[in-house]
Amino acid sequence: MSRWEPNARGRLEQAALELFAERGFEQTTVEDIATRAGLTKRTFFRYFSDKREVLFGGGDEFKQRFVDALAGAPASAAPIEAIAISLETVASAFRDRHQFARQRQAVIAANAELQERELVKLASVAAALAATLRERGVDEPDASVIAETAVAVFRIAFERWVADTDAGNLPELIRESLQALRAVAAGR
Amino acid sequence: MSRWEPNARGRLEQAALELFAERGFEQTTVEDIATRAGLTKRTFFRYFSDKREVLFGGGDEFKQRFVDALAGAPASAAPIEAIAISLETVASAFRDRHQFARQRQAVIAANAELQERELVKLASVAAALAATLRERGVDEPDASVIAETAVAVFRIAFERWVADTDAGNLPELIRESLQALRAVAAGR
Repeated sequence: MSRWEPNARGRLEQAALELFAERGFEQTTVEDIATRAGLTKRTFFRYFSDKREVLFGGGDEFKQRFVDALAGAPASAAPIEAIAISLETVASAFRDRHQFARQRQAVIAANAELQERELVKLASVAAALAATLRERGVDEPDASVIAETAVAVFRIAFERWVADTDAGNLPELIRESLQALRAVAAGR
Repeated sequence: MSRWEPNARGRLEQAALELFAERGFEQTTVEDIATRAGLTKRTFFRYFSDKREVLFGGGDEFKQRFVDALAGAPASAAPIEAIAISLETVASAFRDRHQFARQRQAVIAANAELQERELVKLASVAAALAATLRERGVDEPDASVIAETAVAVFRIAFERWVADTDAGNLPELIRESLQALRAVAAGR
């Protein structure tokens, strides 16, 4: 009975986000999600190891995108320029994910454990960016300062983006936050 | 039998840190801590609600110090200057706590749950600093960018400070990290 279901992952994702919003994350079971999506638990586990992975499953890929874009920035780029390229590249990948990001953020905001998990995920991105900066020849503490600041800038822009019902321009919000950082650091 | 024990808090703190390092945080009980300190469980609970509070008990006071120092900075100070005052004020309060901070950091580094808790604590400091900056008239996203960056700078300097067996100068390390931030943001 293991037949191919069209867009099973997307349907499970959508069903999970709806149920998390309606009942809360803790109160939703994998069975509930599969039923709402018109699929089986078995199909669910083909895509996700547990319900938390619906929210955090792309974490490694998310981190790798930052790292790859930073590693691929021109060697001549100053660290802040290379970081800007990295953040904007990742931001561009979210272009069609505004609705998903909004729903996901609301679920996470309602659950302390999920918020901790999100902090851990972002801390791991910062550590990977710092390591990549060191490979590009940036010394410590500069590498860590840039990496942590970059993740903060990304998160703040991302939160502004999801807070808006209109799908605004995330790369543009990133540029604004980086601009704010430059102005602040210059003492303005 | 409730007699006053000289420096009970300090003895419990030291006993807890030794046991966390020797056996691991999970494997240490409140009873173990009290016994090692030559005190009773009852005395332990007079100072701490549980063993985790030995590591995180000062969290609200820690946050409040950042906030008070920022709120008390001259109104004429640029945001980055006001933040520098806040970070250096808090850093000065750690002058005699190098050994404690080193032991505490080692325990936290060995336990994922404690690391999450530390991230949550620092995120809460950043949120409080952003709110205080808004009260000082700083708009968003600048307030959040400065606050998050400030906490990152503090954390990086703090980690360098505890990594060193010599009790170096934490405020000086903070100034170095802030200087790194300025240089980076200026594109150098």
